[in-house]
Amino acid sequence: MTRPRAALALVHHPVLDRTGRVVATAVTPLDVHDLARLTVTYGLDRCYVVTPLPAQAALLGDLLRHWVEGAGGRANPWRRTALEAVRVVPDLAGALRDLGALWGRRPWVLATSARRGDGRISFGEARRRLAREGGLVVFGTGWGLAPEALEACDDLLEPVDPGTGYNHLSVRSAASIVVDRLWGGAKEIET
Amino acid sequence: MTRPRAALALVHHPVLDRTGRVVATAVTPLDVHDLARLTVTYGLDRCYVVTPLPAQAALLGDLLRHWVEGAGGRANPWRRTALEAVRVVPDLAGALRDLGALWGRRPWVLATSARRGDGRISFGEARRRLAREGGLVVFGTGWGLAPEALEACDDLLEPVDPGTGYNHLSVRSAASIVVDRLWGGAKEIET
Repeated sequence: MTRPRAALALVHHPVLDRTGRVVATAVTPLDVHDLARLTVTYGLDRCYVVTPLPAQAALLGDLLRHWVEGAGGRANPWRRTALEAVRVVPDLAGALRDLGALWGRRPWVLATSARRGDGRISFGEARRRLAREGGLVVFGTGWGLAPEALEACDDLLEPVDPGTGYNHLSVRSAASIVVDRLWGGAKEIET
Repeated sequence: MTRPRAALALVHHPVLDRTGRVVATAVTPLDVHDLARLTVTYGLDRCYVVTPLPAQAALLGDLLRHWVEGAGGRANPWRRTALEAVRVVPDLAGALRDLGALWGRRPWVLATSARRGDGRISFGEARRRLAREGGLVVFGTGWGLAPEALEACDDLLEPVDPGTGYNHLSVRSAASIVVDRLWGGAKEIET
């Protein structure tokens, strides 16, 4: 079976802050490490870090050089392998251009949200479609993707929300759970 | 249905470093936030942070006071709710004593590991047992729980490992995936 082509994007702008304003969040290096390790552990192609801020992109460039070409990667080759999957892009269009070059077509783009609402597609449906045609799954930092980021995506995934009335996972936790539900251990759970 | 009683423990000693030596790792505040948010999102009772080092326990005490009683919690009540579930203990025995007082009995203690091997119990089996009787699920920092920590547990869970040949998740990612597989969205995936 050919591995379906798949990628993640972690968006720092346009996202919401807790008051609902559209902002650019600061890049958290640990997020980049965690999502890169997740990407490679699940056999996905790319982890895009989306920020339009040149200073943040420069900081990320330093981080990636340290781990991919520098002392970090020599000391920890596992971490180098993970961070080799990371690409820094100014916006989702940049991620789509890169994936277009890699895959030869525009991918299906699936947004995520912690909020319930109409028109979300289920994990089962998304899992089946990703297995058929692959796609790019998009996560927002801060208080989630802003409406203009959602509009750049084709579909919106239902939230992880386990229904306790409290649903405040870190983006690191949420992305890990979403990736596992979409590409991971359903086999073990179904048996 | 009564909610099954369940808790997490994040162990900083005894764990392994990358050379296989038994060490005490430093507490990463972001781990504590992520696991506390995970604990409350999935309706678990407690998140134990296990460290025998007094200086680390003092640092954690400051962090918890800031978020539970101080300015952090006033600014972000969601975060306060999460961190109220955290208890700092010097060892797993301390967590068992606290849970014994809370639940009236010693819990089933399930260790986790990223390594494959004999005698692991499956996610399905662990999920069913936790639904019946609850339990404490134990995660190691560094390069995983040391043998003496594993011996303090009753059973060992199979790894998350999706089988790509690369299996290096952060403890934040691994704990999120394990909690979701044990207490989360199997319903959505099964349908």
